[in-house]
Amino acid sequence: MSKVVKIKNLSIGGGNRIAIQSMTNTDTLDTDATAAQLKALQIAGCDIARLAVSSEDEVKACKPLICKFDMPLVADIQFDYKLAVMACEIGFDKIRFNPGNIGDENKVKILVDACKAHGVPIRIGVNTGSLEREYIGLPPAEALKKSALKHVALLEKFGFYDIVISVKSSDVKTMIDAYRSLAEEVDYPLHLGVTESGADIRGIVRSAVGIGSLLCDGIGDTVRVSLSGDPINEVEAARLILQESGIDKNYCQIVSCPTCSRCKYDLKALVDELKAATKDIKTPVKLAVMGCVVNGPGEARDADFGVVGGTGGKVAIFAGGKAVKTVDHSEVVPEILRMIEQKSKI
Amino acid sequence: MSKVVKIKNLSIGGGNRIAIQSMTNTDTLDTDATAAQLKALQIAGCDIARLAVSSEDEVKACKPLICKFDMPLVADIQFDYKLAVMACEIGFDKIRFNPGNIGDENKVKILVDACKAHGVPIRIGVNTGSLEREYIGLPPAEALKKSALKHVALLEKFGFYDIVISVKSSDVKTMIDAYRSLAEEVDYPLHLGVTESGADIRGIVRSAVGIGSLLCDGIGDTVRVSLSGDPINEVEAARLILQESGIDKNYCQIVSCPTCSRCKYDLKALVDELKAATKDIKTPVKLAVMGCVVNGPGEARDADFGVVGGTGGKVAIFAGGKAVKTVDHSEVVPEILRMIEQKSKI
Repeated sequence: MSKVVKIKNLSIGGGNRIAIQSMTNTDTLDTDATAAQLKALQIAGCDIARLAVSSEDEVKACKPLICKFDMPLVADIQFDYKLAVMACEIGFDKIRFNPGNIGDENKVKILVDACKAHGVPIRIGVNTGSLEREYIGLPPAEALKKSALKHVALLEKFGFYDIVISVKSSDVKTMIDAYRSLAEEVDYPLHLGVTESGADIRGIVRSAVGIGSLLCDGIGDTVRVSLSGDPINEVEAARLILQESGIDKNYCQIVSCPTCSRCKYDLKALVDELKAATKDIKTPVKLAVMGCVVNGPGEARDADFGVVGGTGGKVAIFAGGKAVKTVDHSEVVPEILRMIEQKSKI
Repeated sequence: MSKVVKIKNLSIGGGNRIAIQSMTNTDTLDTDATAAQLKALQIAGCDIARLAVSSEDEVKACKPLICKFDMPLVADIQFDYKLAVMACEIGFDKIRFNPGNIGDENKVKILVDACKAHGVPIRIGVNTGSLEREYIGLPPAEALKKSALKHVALLEKFGFYDIVISVKSSDVKTMIDAYRSLAEEVDYPLHLGVTESGADIRGIVRSAVGIGSLLCDGIGDTVRVSLSGDPINEVEAARLILQESGIDKNYCQIVSCPTCSRCKYDLKALVDELKAATKDIKTPVKLAVMGCVVNGPGEARDADFGVVGGTGGKVAIFAGGKAVKTVDHSEVVPEILRMIEQKSKI
């Protein structure tokens, strides 16, 4: 298990809830647009938001945003350590910066001192797309890890350990290998992501494979799904991946069979109805909606509640693994909602 | 690497292309509806289709379908070994049957003899939902593996080795663990799936995590994405998972950045345009669409072609890792298509 790093009022690592991150794509100088996007991200469930900061004016423009939001804000800075120092001073809660890019250890010390003074952790964020020349040619996962460890060593040299690390790639296999290998060597919290994963469903699927498989192996403390487009989609995709990987159980999970010739009712329609009816549930409930008696009772046994199709327009309702009643199709949704409500009261 | 199992004209395992499977959900007795769905599945890219067969009449109804389709057809039979024998005789290309459910070894021998005589492989398909009573209470992944190995041992006892195995669960972590542990013990091809994974995007994400992570580890020879609803969606989701996991490279992969304050053009619109323009490409092309010069040139270097946003309405086009020209936004799509076409001629 990784060590804990505190970012403002949020602790990541050490078995804490996996935090969801995103990044604004408004012009950082346009404070109103950026504030509106940060607000929307927060409402959508974003735990930590990052802003690209490329100039002194941009750092300064962030000051009112930092005051306005409880949500920890991260300054993404590429090469300029002075901007990073300024970001600490102005109140950013974390910076994303690769100290190996500064080229002068005295400057690294100045940055570390600023971070220490202001309690600001640093995320080292290595990407295949911006790997230093010296690592090009190595197997890509190894190159990512070596680059990350070089940056880490620079910070540790100055007694700085408030570190989060990412080793992203747009190639899923590369990022899986890099994170696995990194997790064996360090106990800093890991920030998971597939870079430049594209847009829409493709990007979500690519991220699900990369991020989800690491989370299932117990690797990763915070995630960002990078999608081209509105960053709100990133937050929703991240939540989906956390839920469907089995990491976040605080929702109504509907397990439903794909149906086959054995299914004698419109299961998909019932699933859609139940999905809509249970979408706001924030406690762990597992609901199995099954077509027939082959896998039905077995899945229903593993779920809190089950619906198993029978013949003659009736379905059996299961609770706690036992068939408790038989109802008409029209009664399924209210009956299940009633049972979930009753359960949540216990 | 697993051994090869031949299903009609299709070889799975041993490093062959990962085959995509689906299952009809029409009434098996309604031959017209089933034929139409099989045809649609084949057009969508389904490699192997399965039909639930629950009676002698249903087996007989499949005869004209078997004659009509090149695509291998699989009979899904639950408990009745006589139906399984009949499915072999009538020409099914594979059966899905768990021989441990027969309860009499003489009957297993009769089934094995029929499969041998007709060259029909057997998929042993274990699901959490239909686990035998004796395994309930064990850790779920271990229960799945033990049940599968019991069925395998029964077939091997009669000298039958034309076996494919699945150990599905609706819990992603359980199925990952079960397949990993099974892959260490057997060299039969593995059929991957998350059972009852739900509908729509949730089911796709859950399957992506489970199936994708195993594929990235080199485990799995054929996949089925189980989704409630039209099975065509299963085939499309399977292809998406294979592509985004990096297993199927025969398409135009678009790597695009999530954009941030540094991006000064409408990258998402360009990505959408390029996606539409390249959707029918069936050869491996990697295209990076990047917002700025931070990760842009690096990602473009790893891609066949790259588009990197600059200032003043111009973008740089990369090929083979080098900036080759600067064009207006309106010229990007035709220029990239021209370059892809040129590449495919080489």
